[in-house]
Amino acid sequence: MKALWLEERALRFREDARSPEPLADEATVRVLLAGICNTDLELEKGYYPFTGVPGHEFVGRVEACASAPDWVGQRVVGEINASCGTCETCRAGRRTHCERRTVLGIRGRDGAFAERLRLPVANLHAVPAGVSDEAACFTEPLAAALQVQEQVPVHPEDRLVVIGAGKLGQLVARTLGLRARDVLVVGRDRSRLRPLADLGLRVGTADAIEEGRADLVVECTGNPEGLALASRAVRTQGTVVLKSTYHEKAALDVSRLVVNEVTLVGSRCGPFAPALGLLAEGRVDVGPLVEARFPLREGLRAFAEAARPGTLKVLLDCA
Amino acid sequence: MKALWLEERALRFREDARSPEPLADEATVRVLLAGICNTDLELEKGYYPFTGVPGHEFVGRVEACASAPDWVGQRVVGEINASCGTCETCRAGRRTHCERRTVLGIRGRDGAFAERLRLPVANLHAVPAGVSDEAACFTEPLAAALQVQEQVPVHPEDRLVVIGAGKLGQLVARTLGLRARDVLVVGRDRSRLRPLADLGLRVGTADAIEEGRADLVVECTGNPEGLALASRAVRTQGTVVLKSTYHEKAALDVSRLVVNEVTLVGSRCGPFAPALGLLAEGRVDVGPLVEARFPLREGLRAFAEAARPGTLKVLLDCA
Repeated sequence: MKALWLEERALRFREDARSPEPLADEATVRVLLAGICNTDLELEKGYYPFTGVPGHEFVGRVEACASAPDWVGQRVVGEINASCGTCETCRAGRRTHCERRTVLGIRGRDGAFAERLRLPVANLHAVPAGVSDEAACFTEPLAAALQVQEQVPVHPEDRLVVIGAGKLGQLVARTLGLRARDVLVVGRDRSRLRPLADLGLRVGTADAIEEGRADLVVECTGNPEGLALASRAVRTQGTVVLKSTYHEKAALDVSRLVVNEVTLVGSRCGPFAPALGLLAEGRVDVGPLVEARFPLREGLRAFAEAARPGTLKVLLDCA
Repeated sequence: MKALWLEERALRFREDARSPEPLADEATVRVLLAGICNTDLELEKGYYPFTGVPGHEFVGRVEACASAPDWVGQRVVGEINASCGTCETCRAGRRTHCERRTVLGIRGRDGAFAERLRLPVANLHAVPAGVSDEAACFTEPLAAALQVQEQVPVHPEDRLVVIGAGKLGQLVARTLGLRARDVLVVGRDRSRLRPLADLGLRVGTADAIEEGRADLVVECTGNPEGLALASRAVRTQGTVVLKSTYHEKAALDVSRLVVNEVTLVGSRCGPFAPALGLLAEGRVDVGPLVEARFPLREGLRAFAEAARPGTLKVLLDCA
């Protein structure tokens, strides 16, 4: 089948990739559309060791499913962590942290930049009819944005700051804006901030931050300066959520954290059902976030486009 | 009056220190006994700018109290943060983080290594008759240890790790041991670990840590290696509480924090009432933690003794 293939930091388009061979509890999904995420760009840079088909944001149609044939033909999105269900972590209910997990297009499992992928049936979610393919493609990152609210209670009167208006910052800001009245989004690129301002969010550069006033700060820049900015913005006994990974270590001012009793929360994958719900109800409009769409065979051009600073979502037509 | 005086990193004993002049809502307290904390040692090293009388762990007797004369003659301990009550932070109920606060012996207010100190009446707590002066002197650090449980729920079946068996680690371990069955205390000095083992806690060196298994890790070493060790010990979606400040910045592995969804919590001062309760009920025995006792005039020797690696609590007789 056609697929993008990553090996030793080199991405290439292949016509001869092997089609996935689903396990007993898995379905084969024909990929319709897939989105490029910063993690994919980091995989390409070699920050994580991965050989195979990258890609974990997708919408597709179930082509085969031996254990549950009702799924065949359904349009689906899929949770990316395939867990064992039996390790201590799974038994404790933390399946996205399964010790033996594979992760679609990230760890031990070929991903979505291909004509087909395989995933456990338990990972699939049917996409409501009213949700377009483009919108459905945002289910995974939107779920990741919602994870913030799974981990930290957000109240309508809270003062929130989102650092970064890139791919993830856009979704985090939009979801927090549904919950709280005072959301400030900090970014460098005015054109990225404008659509957020149109939604009624406050926007600005780092200068717009009032020091030590935010109840909750979400760091979405993926660089150490973002954490320093977040530490300045958060109030005493407030919370900073870190959504982005980066390769370097960050210098943490421990004294400040302790004296101000600040909480730092690492945050990764989130719940698909409420993300699909928001898309179905039209409460989060992801349309303005689509920057470009390329056919799968032009995947390398798509990656180059996605890697340009400030680019939002680049999609790959895999059908 | 007699007092220890810190000025430009030099500590000296003075006979001619000015007696405190209490404000309208304050009491004058005759200090009986005071404890030396690591923060005092850091002040002496010049890590925080402070000129005046250091010391914030004490027990004393109220000598004068214009606004509430009933206090006179009572044996008391005192919360160390004197807050304004009117700033935004105070109004939000976070009085220990008052933006205009003074802190006994740490910030803008002379402390306990003296014959007398002044504190707002609201900061005073009467010491129950059954609590010895030595035990009462531990109210403040014991409250700081209990703050961990104010910030993070601890369940009996949780797996806990305390990194560091020094002054604060000892109290954190003892209080957590009252709540959970499985507490591992990690330290370098066997003699510090033995009394904890006698209480039924597990003890060991860093090798005793099982990687990624602890629900909650409390870092009490006050050095960056402690944080690295804590990061190794904590499970996915687990919590690391940082109790110690240190001057250097620590290198934080943000990717690990995010991917494992770990929470870091800075933790400082805690609630006095339950600390006094534990001392009154004899549920925490602080006797084994007293290393030495010096008269106030030998304060410099006391500081030298307290600064020896591995030394637990050194007390100053101020009466």
